[in-house]
Amino acid sequence: MPSNTPKEISFTSEVRVRFAEVDPLGIVWHGNYIQYFEDGREAFGRHHGISYLDQKDSNFSTPIVESKCEHKLPLTYGDVATVKTTYVDCEAAKMIFTYEILNPQGQVVCKGRTVQVFVALGGELSLVIPDFFIAWKKKVGLLDG
Amino acid sequence: MPSNTPKEISFTSEVRVRFAEVDPLGIVWHGNYIQYFEDGREAFGRHHGISYLDQKDSNFSTPIVESKCEHKLPLTYGDVATVKTTYVDCEAAKMIFTYEILNPQGQVVCKGRTVQVFVALGGELSLVIPDFFIAWKKKVGLLDG
Amino acid sequence: MPSNTPKEISFTSEVRVRFAEVDPLGIVWHGNYIQYFEDGREAFGRHHGISYLDQKDSNFSTPIVESKCEHKLPLTYGDVATVKTTYVDCEAAKMIFTYEILNPQGQVVCKGRTVQVFVALGGELSLVIPDFFIAWKKKVGLLDG
Amino acid sequence: MPSNTPKEISFTSEVRVRFAEVDPLGIVWHGNYIQYFEDGREAFGRHHGISYLDQKDSNFSTPIVESKCEHKLPLTYGDVATVKTTYVDCEAAKMIFTYEILNPQGQVVCKGRTVQVFVALGGELSLVIPDFFIAWKKKVGLLDG
Repeated sequence: MPSNTPKEISFTSEVRVRFAEVDPLGIVWHGNYIQYFEDGREAFGRHHGISYLDQKDSNFSTPIVESKCEHKLPLTYGDVATVKTTYVDCEAAKMIFTYEILNPQGQVVCKGRTVQVFVALGGELSLVIPDFFIAWKKKVGLLDG
Repeated sequence: MPSNTPKEISFTSEVRVRFAEVDPLGIVWHGNYIQYFEDGREAFGRHHGISYLDQKDSNFSTPIVESKCEHKLPLTYGDVATVKTTYVDCEAAKMIFTYEILNPQGQVVCKGRTVQVFVALGGELSLVIPDFFIAWKKKVGLLDG
Repeated sequence: MPSNTPKEISFTSEVRVRFAEVDPLGIVWHGNYIQYFEDGREAFGRHHGISYLDQKDSNFSTPIVESKCEHKLPLTYGDVATVKTTYVDCEAAKMIFTYEILNPQGQVVCKGRTVQVFVALGGELSLVIPDFFIAWKKKVGLLDG
Repeated sequence: MPSNTPKEISFTSEVRVRFAEVDPLGIVWHGNYIQYFEDGREAFGRHHGISYLDQKDSNFSTPIVESKCEHKLPLTYGDVATVKTTYVDCEAAKMIFTYEILNPQGQVVCKGRTVQVFVALGGELSLVIPDFFIAWKKKVGLLDG
């Protein structure tokens, strides 16, 4: 029985705002959210076995080709934010993640999305989903084994 | 005689890739492009009289509420990239900039877009275009004086 | 009964190396250790009640006036390092911390030292130890109450 | 006729303070001076033919093993600082640089020093001065040719 909703897997992690990440206006400089997304994506990856180092072991890297960030509220020094990272499955040779960052009060401060492609060790873009990622999809239940 | 094309003003600046901006894969880490956009926007602002410090003198700040980045090609250490920053006029109380970053060979490595809003000194979001920004639009020819 | 050994208090925390902190040589860029020192100092501060925010509540900031860093071994991506932060008591109006950063194998990769001074809210350097810091020294047993 | 003063070569460059380099106190975060030192050292290196890329062409890297920084005055957003980088010759297999950073008023805001060693491509520390660096010393007049 087919489903039209995209299959998703999430993981929630925390990031503590660093003093040097806060700008003269007293709020986290917007560019640092890209780092928070990466922190969330790598926490997801370590938990689900698909981190940068797992990819490297499979002789692939997955450079970001698109990123997007919407800022709703500021974070400030002292905040420990929650990063909810969601892998959004697709049929293309891509990895898509969405992010929701919440402040200590549970309000969404930022939403984002990144798209990654697969590049083999030699530098060649993979036009098909690499075997290691097919295997990962099966392992986590996104594909029938 | 009305025009449907948005009015735009551009400025071109340069950014030299720093060693610490390059990641273990030997390319500029994607999050650093947000900094390059800001470098371009501030170079535009200094040239056209609408930089962060000009805004501050008018008792406003203009936090980023949206940013978007598309990566086409990598930059690496030793590259001096060109940043073309374009102010895209709109009727809302917003500042929209687009960015094109070119490598030393003149190829587009990255395209981006940011949206900023106007916040008064006390922290209140301005729902109308502040006077200083109306004055700036007139000065640079985006509005009839 | 006088003691010639300086009185010290330590705290141990962890820092996970971020991908963007690693340079093209595959090792943590040396400048990032200053951030790791701050991470350690703030973890110490939160534990012992003398963090940046505690100082701010007392209307003081404590800018760094000296920092020193000796690198023994590299850290790389995937490493979770241990930061041992030690407050070294002195009689001057200063805060001195030393740092030892250890890799996952327990080897010292980096040693450091920072010196901070006390600046009152208005911007004036304090030539004497501020009351809040005297109170803190008593609280943690560095001064007789 | 021998000289007791160390032989030195200097180069002066500029660095523009970035918004994201300024902390909530409105001054450049102290850790960013390590980046300014590197900016100065690389500007020196490009001018005198001994930059990171020149070293790499000779199959060597020169990791920092010591760095030191003394802060005298703050820098703030809008400042274009001057970095005076001085190579201080020594007989060991080391590269020693000192730094003086001046604010737009010409006051010294920061002084620093870094020590680098020579590591061959394979990762081995060189206990003697590599040939390419001997050649460089001759070229710039620090050694008789």
